[in-house]
Amino acid sequence: MTIPTHRIAVIPGDGIGTEVMPPAQRLLELAGHRFGFAFEWQNFDWSCEYYARTGAMMPADGIEQLAECDQILLGAVGFPGVPDHVSLWGLLIPIRRAFQQYINLRPIKLLPGIESPLRKVPAGGIDFQVVRENNEGEYSESGGRLYRGLPQEVAIQESIFTRFGVTRAMNYAINLAEQREGRLASATKSNGIIHTMPFWDEILRELGQEHPLLEISEYHIDALAALFVLDPGRFDVIVASNLFGDILTDLGAAIIGSIGIAPSANLNPEGEFPSMFEPVHGSAPDIAGRGKANPLGQVWAASMMLDHLGHSEAGAALVDTMGHVLLETDVRTPDLGGRATTEEVSDALAAAFAT
Amino acid sequence: MTIPTHRIAVIPGDGIGTEVMPPAQRLLELAGHRFGFAFEWQNFDWSCEYYARTGAMMPADGIEQLAECDQILLGAVGFPGVPDHVSLWGLLIPIRRAFQQYINLRPIKLLPGIESPLRKVPAGGIDFQVVRENNEGEYSESGGRLYRGLPQEVAIQESIFTRFGVTRAMNYAINLAEQREGRLASATKSNGIIHTMPFWDEILRELGQEHPLLEISEYHIDALAALFVLDPGRFDVIVASNLFGDILTDLGAAIIGSIGIAPSANLNPEGEFPSMFEPVHGSAPDIAGRGKANPLGQVWAASMMLDHLGHSEAGAALVDTMGHVLLETDVRTPDLGGRATTEEVSDALAAAFAT
Ligand SMILES: CC(C)[C@H](C(=O)O)[C@@H](O)C(=O)O
Ligand SMILES: CC(C)[C@H](C(=O)O)[C@@H](O)C(=O)O
Repeated sequence: MTIPTHRIAVIPGDGIGTEVMPPAQRLLELAGHRFGFAFEWQNFDWSCEYYARTGAMMPADGIEQLAECDQILLGAVGFPGVPDHVSLWGLLIPIRRAFQQYINLRPIKLLPGIESPLRKVPAGGIDFQVVRENNEGEYSESGGRLYRGLPQEVAIQESIFTRFGVTRAMNYAINLAEQREGRLASATKSNGIIHTMPFWDEILRELGQEHPLLEISEYHIDALAALFVLDPGRFDVIVASNLFGDILTDLGAAIIGSIGIAPSANLNPEGEFPSMFEPVHGSAPDIAGRGKANPLGQVWAASMMLDHLGHSEAGAALVDTMGHVLLETDVRTPDLGGRATTEEVSDALAAAFAT
Repeated sequence: MTIPTHRIAVIPGDGIGTEVMPPAQRLLELAGHRFGFAFEWQNFDWSCEYYARTGAMMPADGIEQLAECDQILLGAVGFPGVPDHVSLWGLLIPIRRAFQQYINLRPIKLLPGIESPLRKVPAGGIDFQVVRENNEGEYSESGGRLYRGLPQEVAIQESIFTRFGVTRAMNYAINLAEQREGRLASATKSNGIIHTMPFWDEILRELGQEHPLLEISEYHIDALAALFVLDPGRFDVIVASNLFGDILTDLGAAIIGSIGIAPSANLNPEGEFPSMFEPVHGSAPDIAGRGKANPLGQVWAASMMLDHLGHSEAGAALVDTMGHVLLETDVRTPDLGGRATTEEVSDALAAAFAT
């Protein structure tokens, strides 16, 4: 009997990206053994270090190489010396776009054993999903600068929203909300941003009419951010533009205790192209190379990859394993108040998974 | 002997704006009596209700009328039925711009007697200032829509940053940081927003070289939002663009316990034009007319007006009075967990101020 084999592109990237990747691969291998599938790893050393060597974040045919794989596991990209907009627009963002990964799905869920920095955690816990539009909006290459260096200098950046792009992101969020508690909150700023956000709202209302059972609320992004702190229990699914989703999900990672835990799935929901799974945290040059990186964000991202591959039982087993280690042991990295190394957390996860 | 008289434009606006204004005026009168100055109130009924009657948020010569006043006290504007972008772009934003109120200053300070929703409040308390650029950036009228209603529809919004506008906002923030603890944090998103934010960073670095003693840090807006929750004690002064400042200050209001408390000063620092003082909260139609509105945000805004008028002792006395009532009594509105009405809080403040 042959078992399904998934060909996974692995891009550890920079800094702690290279440290948190091995634990995630290890757990994926264990999950494969238990649930009956296998991985073929395809490693790519694309990173700022690669950029320093070659002048590009990835080779000219990088996208074609990745297209040969089923899914992509990404660590983190970015290192001092390489301007951020170079490293990100040279790798992360082109991948998100070339493969129409138009959804960035980020669960905001307080795991067992983790203390939220919020004094009052809602009775039902913190458990919602942010659906971030991932291909357009505020992240655009359109714009530029005039009168460089002169007192008259002006910089312009265009946010570009399309009915096509907004509709498909909202439909994904609506669908997700219908599978959960049927409540969808939308992040907007229609009082301040006068062209794109009223457009966003209009599309939401049109789609809402097709889904009369869904409970839809619109929140201004400023108020929404405040509610993450004041009343996170009210949310089920949130749909947000690229930038608003970016801000909300880091804030969401904070209320669930550590940016080191939160995962992110860049999804091409139709499965026409590979999707990409990464932790929310960055390459953290300040702690890189010291064995302090928290591997949980990468492991959780790996579990989202399993869900996407249709192995949802295996995906759930990984998240359960994380919860088990957090609840039953004190093996945790410094960002969670512990003293364990990345390696020790990896060992604890592997041991817990085995039992 | 004559005492100085300040001519103040009063725009209560909509909803709870009309309820929180009288307490603020009452406290200002009391402060005038004690510290030797007086007010001449100029009332303006500009609001969504005015819009319903006249088709405009304010008369065509509204700006000229306000220009006759020394300062402006604003309640809140916005009401269901009038689209937000109409009400705000018809009143609040034109005033901010016509009078070159290019700084929006928002203290994030945990008052005595208020419990932060954060479990761990830093030893030194929460006490920092957000300097928000208030005249340009993401809030622009530039942009529009193509193919309205068709599947091909596109909406574009331009963010416009000028060296002139960014420099004057940063200089204000630098100056403020130098009067405080000498630490300036800048909100950026240079990894995602590729034209305007690297420009913002460049100007900051240039100005930083002229102020070598200042400790300057750059934070991506997503990480910065997370740090408001994870480590608010690290901040002294934060400088942010119009939109980022908007989001950060609502979040800041949340970590100091209630959006009903936080104040905002739209400053024309040179005093060439009137400045405008308003609470961070909106018109809150859901609780309007029920005597539940928290007047503290408006009173705190009034105290910032006193500071700006050069009556900083009187301004401090108002903030002390708020702290006194919060610490020594249980007279507080429902948003702070109390049962008092707006009127009762007003009475308690007046009584405390008198002692
Ligand atoms: C009402 C809105 C336009 C305004 C803003 O975003 O500036 C408000 O949120 C504020 O912070 O004063
Ligand atoms: C690094 C940056 C471009 C990226 C983003 O803003 O999308 C990151 O913050 C994220 O959230 O994945």
